[in-house]
Amino acid sequence: MLHSPYLQANPSLHVFLPLFYTVWSDAILTPSEIATIEGLINSQGWLTKSEHDFLVSQLNPAAPPTADELMEWKDEIKNAAELTIGKTLVDIGIKLVELKGGNVPVEVLKAKPSLANIEATLGFISHEATFNFQSGGRSTVTHQQTTQKTFDVNAMTRLLDGKNAATIRKVKTIITDPEFQYVDPSNLDAYRERVLDWCRLLAGQGFGAMAYPKEYGGQGDMAAYFAIMETLSYHDLSMVIKFGVQFGLWGMSVYFLGTEKHHKKYLKDIGTLDLPGCFAMTETHHGSNVKGIETTATYQHATKTLVINTPHAFAKKDYIGNAAKHGQMATVFVKLIIDGKDYGVSAVVVPLRDKKGNTMPGITIEDCGRKMGLNGVDNGKIEFKNVIVPVENLLDRFAGITDDGKFTSPIASDNRRFFTMLGTLVGGRIGIPRSGLSAVKSGLTIAIKYSDQRKQFGPEGAPEVPILNYRTHQRRLMPLLANAYALHFSLQYLTDRFINRTEEEMQEIEALAAGLKAFATWNTTATLQECRESCGGKGYLSENRIDDLKNDTDIYTTFEGDNTVLMQLVAKSRLTEFKQEFARMDFFGILGYVAEQAATSISELNPITVRNTDEEHLLDPTFQLDAFKYRERDILTSAAKRLKRHISEGMDSFDAFNVAQHHLVQVGFAYIERMVLEKFIEQVNQTTDAGCKAILKKLCDLFALSQIDKNKGWYLEQGYMEGVKTKAIRKLMNQLCWDIRQEAVPLVDAFAIPDSCLAAPIVVGK
Amino acid sequence: MLHSPYLQANPSLHVFLPLFYTVWSDAILTPSEIATIEGLINSQGWLTKSEHDFLVSQLNPAAPPTADELMEWKDEIKNAAELTIGKTLVDIGIKLVELKGGNVPVEVLKAKPSLANIEATLGFISHEATFNFQSGGRSTVTHQQTTQKTFDVNAMTRLLDGKNAATIRKVKTIITDPEFQYVDPSNLDAYRERVLDWCRLLAGQGFGAMAYPKEYGGQGDMAAYFAIMETLSYHDLSMVIKFGVQFGLWGMSVYFLGTEKHHKKYLKDIGTLDLPGCFAMTETHHGSNVKGIETTATYQHATKTLVINTPHAFAKKDYIGNAAKHGQMATVFVKLIIDGKDYGVSAVVVPLRDKKGNTMPGITIEDCGRKMGLNGVDNGKIEFKNVIVPVENLLDRFAGITDDGKFTSPIASDNRRFFTMLGTLVGGRIGIPRSGLSAVKSGLTIAIKYSDQRKQFGPEGAPEVPILNYRTHQRRLMPLLANAYALHFSLQYLTDRFINRTEEEMQEIEALAAGLKAFATWNTTATLQECRESCGGKGYLSENRIDDLKNDTDIYTTFEGDNTVLMQLVAKSRLTEFKQEFARMDFFGILGYVAEQAATSISELNPITVRNTDEEHLLDPTFQLDAFKYRERDILTSAAKRLKRHISEGMDSFDAFNVAQHHLVQVGFAYIERMVLEKFIEQVNQTTDAGCKAILKKLCDLFALSQIDKNKGWYLEQGYMEGVKTKAIRKLMNQLCWDIRQEAVPLVDAFAIPDSCLAAPIVVGK
Repeated sequence: MLHSPYLQANPSLHVFLPLFYTVWSDAILTPSEIATIEGLINSQGWLTKSEHDFLVSQLNPAAPPTADELMEWKDEIKNAAELTIGKTLVDIGIKLVELKGGNVPVEVLKAKPSLANIEATLGFISHEATFNFQSGGRSTVTHQQTTQKTFDVNAMTRLLDGKNAATIRKVKTIITDPEFQYVDPSNLDAYRERVLDWCRLLAGQGFGAMAYPKEYGGQGDMAAYFAIMETLSYHDLSMVIKFGVQFGLWGMSVYFLGTEKHHKKYLKDIGTLDLPGCFAMTETHHGSNVKGIETTATYQHATKTLVINTPHAFAKKDYIGNAAKHGQMATVFVKLIIDGKDYGVSAVVVPLRDKKGNTMPGITIEDCGRKMGLNGVDNGKIEFKNVIVPVENLLDRFAGITDDGKFTSPIASDNRRFFTMLGTLVGGRIGIPRSGLSAVKSGLTIAIKYSDQRKQFGPEGAPEVPILNYRTHQRRLMPLLANAYALHFSLQYLTDRFINRTEEEMQEIEALAAGLKAFATWNTTATLQECRESCGGKGYLSENRIDDLKNDTDIYTTFEGDNTVLMQLVAKSRLTEFKQEFARMDFFGILGYVAEQAATSISELNPITVRNTDEEHLLDPTFQLDAFKYRERDILTSAAKRLKRHISEGMDSFDAFNVAQHHLVQVGFAYIERMVLEKFIEQVNQTTDAGCKAILKKLCDLFALSQIDKNKGWYLEQGYMEGVKTKAIRKLMNQLCWDIRQEAVPLVDAFAIPDSCLAAPIVVGK
Repeated sequence: MLHSPYLQANPSLHVFLPLFYTVWSDAILTPSEIATIEGLINSQGWLTKSEHDFLVSQLNPAAPPTADELMEWKDEIKNAAELTIGKTLVDIGIKLVELKGGNVPVEVLKAKPSLANIEATLGFISHEATFNFQSGGRSTVTHQQTTQKTFDVNAMTRLLDGKNAATIRKVKTIITDPEFQYVDPSNLDAYRERVLDWCRLLAGQGFGAMAYPKEYGGQGDMAAYFAIMETLSYHDLSMVIKFGVQFGLWGMSVYFLGTEKHHKKYLKDIGTLDLPGCFAMTETHHGSNVKGIETTATYQHATKTLVINTPHAFAKKDYIGNAAKHGQMATVFVKLIIDGKDYGVSAVVVPLRDKKGNTMPGITIEDCGRKMGLNGVDNGKIEFKNVIVPVENLLDRFAGITDDGKFTSPIASDNRRFFTMLGTLVGGRIGIPRSGLSAVKSGLTIAIKYSDQRKQFGPEGAPEVPILNYRTHQRRLMPLLANAYALHFSLQYLTDRFINRTEEEMQEIEALAAGLKAFATWNTTATLQECRESCGGKGYLSENRIDDLKNDTDIYTTFEGDNTVLMQLVAKSRLTEFKQEFARMDFFGILGYVAEQAATSISELNPITVRNTDEEHLLDPTFQLDAFKYRERDILTSAAKRLKRHISEGMDSFDAFNVAQHHLVQVGFAYIERMVLEKFIEQVNQTTDAGCKAILKKLCDLFALSQIDKNKGWYLEQGYMEGVKTKAIRKLMNQLCWDIRQEAVPLVDAFAIPDSCLAAPIVVGK
């Protein structure tokens, strides 16, 4: 067409060139498109018969232009487009006519609206077409998104580190030492030995004994211990778990379940790692249901000894960290049998190996072998056959044996004793989510920094765009960044509560720890999955470490209590508080209370509020927190009513809890979500640095709104919000993601993770 | 208390024993509980002063009963409980009085209601208390759940296998051969060699060449080829991917992009694996945006050769399977340059290594090293420096060079040529989701069979309950089982469409493949994550294989097109169809159409229907499919309107698409979900075996309702359903999970995965 003498002779026909090009170059040329353009040509009265026929002949699908011809068209059109002010293909066509020295006949100008109509008729996609001819480098909104920094990164790091800044700095110094270079996890033996070496180096720094009393080589500083666990978790997670098994589980079980004689005998050597040990609670057939464990410790009064036995193959202690290779002793959880009577779950210190590593008589240990992750930890299975230990090995803070061979305990109820014993071990449910959060911070740092650099696609002719500028990518990563900040403050709060606990608060703190552990570790799994996918193939290469971060932490949702079981535990604890409110009322009082709850709920559903889409309202912490609290209270009340109804109707309580189980998990979520938001809002309020405060407010808003969005089905079902409001929330979330994207890199920089720990070549270079 | 002479002398006081026991044995004894019981005692006018004081003295928190005492109480109460008909603690108390030889004074009987009231006042949890005294083995609803079989498992297997049953059987026979015993993946070299050996064995069976024409050693049977890929995927997935790279990507690229000369020269040797090769498309800097690749093939007319060059380090071919070790040739995607002009993406066959494995001159290959999974595949990075190949190596079906050195192509538009070339490779987007679905079937088989056996917790005194009897566990696994069946039929449909395609259908089939690939592989990742968590610690041990299944398939969401990018591709394709509808109308017609769409939507929102909670209605396939279709159409229309609005307002189309990106992904989901449901409903309708039909209907219902539940926020926002209806759907989902749980084991048995492939000791024994 372009070189046809006919076109040269009739330059005004060039007005159609951009349209023809668009149709021919489009990936799909449909018969209806051809028909539409033929209709257009037919409608142009100013064309001569011969001009008309020429144009129609150029639309023959059997005689397309060649590739070379199309390229030349494009060059011509592009040239004209750069000189064109208008935005339509006709505008470009008119310029082309001018450039070709033709007159733009008045008819063409008159035809502009009908030509423009055609573009509309061909659908919005041909609107795009004009952009195809723009020269590169045009600045689109998408392009304009770049990394900025409106806050002081160091100030944010100080805010995150808080009182533990010195400890955190010290740990970072240690783990960036060349001794701590990562090793290949594929050689199981070498990896396990290296991890043990690392733990020894850490013990040498006094990190292991940190929480133990000074008289046993420690600092009595539990806060520092948790900060250490958290900071170590920027490095190899097998090392962290081995560290936690030794100093946390093994050491703390001796400390909390034992008495002074045990502390004196073991604690110092545990803190230096001279006495590597295990925490042998789980059995193959009993994990979540610890009360059901079957290993027995039978008291023999004549010899003042306990005989430890594994009754059958499925009662072996299973998945026990430090057992397959290094453990020399273990806190073994047993059923304590005295005079043929079962006194419930107790703990006994049992030697497993001598100093040379030889297994003790009566003890058989199998290696659990390769796992999905944490392969630097030597998990094993332990079987006991008539293993005899002196009665002094009974960790007898809560369950002892008197000199005349009787059971003794400060807590009569075996139920209550059991929960008290387990309650002392709640520290694990703090350490694990904090470790998981560090893995999340590493993952987000890698994924966000990579996405800020990685470019893919762009407007025609313009440079490609960083993938973090794409909305879907922002929607994947920004809410998770907000979650990470939210959980940082909540886990800090939980730690503070645990450290400053009173006896009365224990039940609440246990529920908080159980729920936060579940919420945070599920968030870890979900976040690292998104990080992997966000980095595409690079995320799949082990060198970029998302592999290990993901696989090592995958078990965190099971560790220290299966998350689903924990969320039910939270729900039961919440119901108990509910029950305590009930206990102050008579039966009619209860009915009244329930009715009142319902009434309150309805009065909150102000028809203006449920439809309020003002940004100011949606970003108001009072609105946000009210919504979370309403959900928390309503779900709890409805769960209680539901259970009550089932049981009143004669259902076995076990069945009633099972039927409502899914509901109960939601009770746990609603409680934890409210708590996390509350602490985040408090943090924003108490932040004094203006830059930090502003970005934290945005993150807090994104956390609040994305949780509401996650639960919007529930809010809409309840009539607490109407569709206009949930839609406005979604829109605002998009905007917040867009805003936070600019600060995303500084926000992960504030985690201040050492490069040698991140190690991913896509972020820190090879 | 029990042995106190006072109680012995006043046996009627025993009526309080169950209540006292419950309070003392409860894990939490609150002051308000004590106050409540004191109130009760005060209100019992029939007590003497001395009896009253005795009872109050027994509530002193400073003087609790001992553990031994509590045990004895329990024995006494239990004994009485077994002889009691009533359900309250008072009923048991009265029986106890009788057993103790006391008279039950009429006052006690009179006091029954107030005593019962107290139990209510203490909250429903003490209602549970009576169950604590029931003897074990009572049959609860939860206990009654067991595995049943109402359908013929073999009939179901036949239904799933369909026409490919013979092929599937043959593949299963081969992969259960001892030669195919799994190997330890930690030794990279050994694993890779083993995987190559396996592929050779499979090629020896004619599996590799299956889809190639007979003249090149194949059977021309594409359907069988996909069935082979799918069945092999019950075994090691590195083997499957290596197989797919060799026979699918490498072989099919030669077949579809090349012409007869290439087929003759290479295809037979590819099919026998005598010529191992690669598919070198992706570059470090260009993955999703294939059009942006930078490797060049410059034509030199004088020598009739092409010179292949990697312009810079980030343009190396990356992640290329078969490249690091075994590949001897590769289909290399390049920009074809002739006379200094860039003719866009083309493909050239380039030798990489000689038969001895020495790298060819100008070629440098790096090993991608260890990955999250698929470590039996040798992925590598390839760099080309002035690598010269004869022009015949150009795969010239779509882009050739004439004898006089000019570019030639049957497709003028480089855009259309590019998409046509890529379109021929759509097979990979069918093979990958089918492979992922097999991994899902393996994972579900392991998790469901384990959960059917694994017991944990139970009613007090009764046996523990299989964890699959818990509602949360059912809600985790049953919808995923329904998804697996749903996707099986959809992927079968997609395969049939692909095999019987016409040119006109290609765009639709490509969109279908892209969308189903994304939907199915995300489902793979999600399902295997749930399987891991559902199996707790056992799921973390590598021996149980969820580890490998999960890690090997994790990249499926990236492979053959990043899922997020693919879903946008689907959306654009849907919008194009939309545009074609538009093309038939003028501008006002479009406005009318949009208005009509909106009107139709509103007329569907019949106020009775939006609140209809009848089970019959909710299980009606017409209701289900209408809901899916409504969503599909509404999301598409609103996305189109939104894009149109943005562009009309002057937004760059690139920006407009970015701003609406999250919306566009939903367009893709809505389309695929509707399609999957439609195919599942068709499958149910055409199933003749009554037993299979009945359970398939339940699975189809669960799929439909769980997708609606997933999208309930949207349905509620639109006013398509009201809260009563979405709540009824949730309830019905629970019921369906409860029902399907009974058939879950037979349903996974119907997948008929060989035990040697499952291999997990928790399911098939060591």
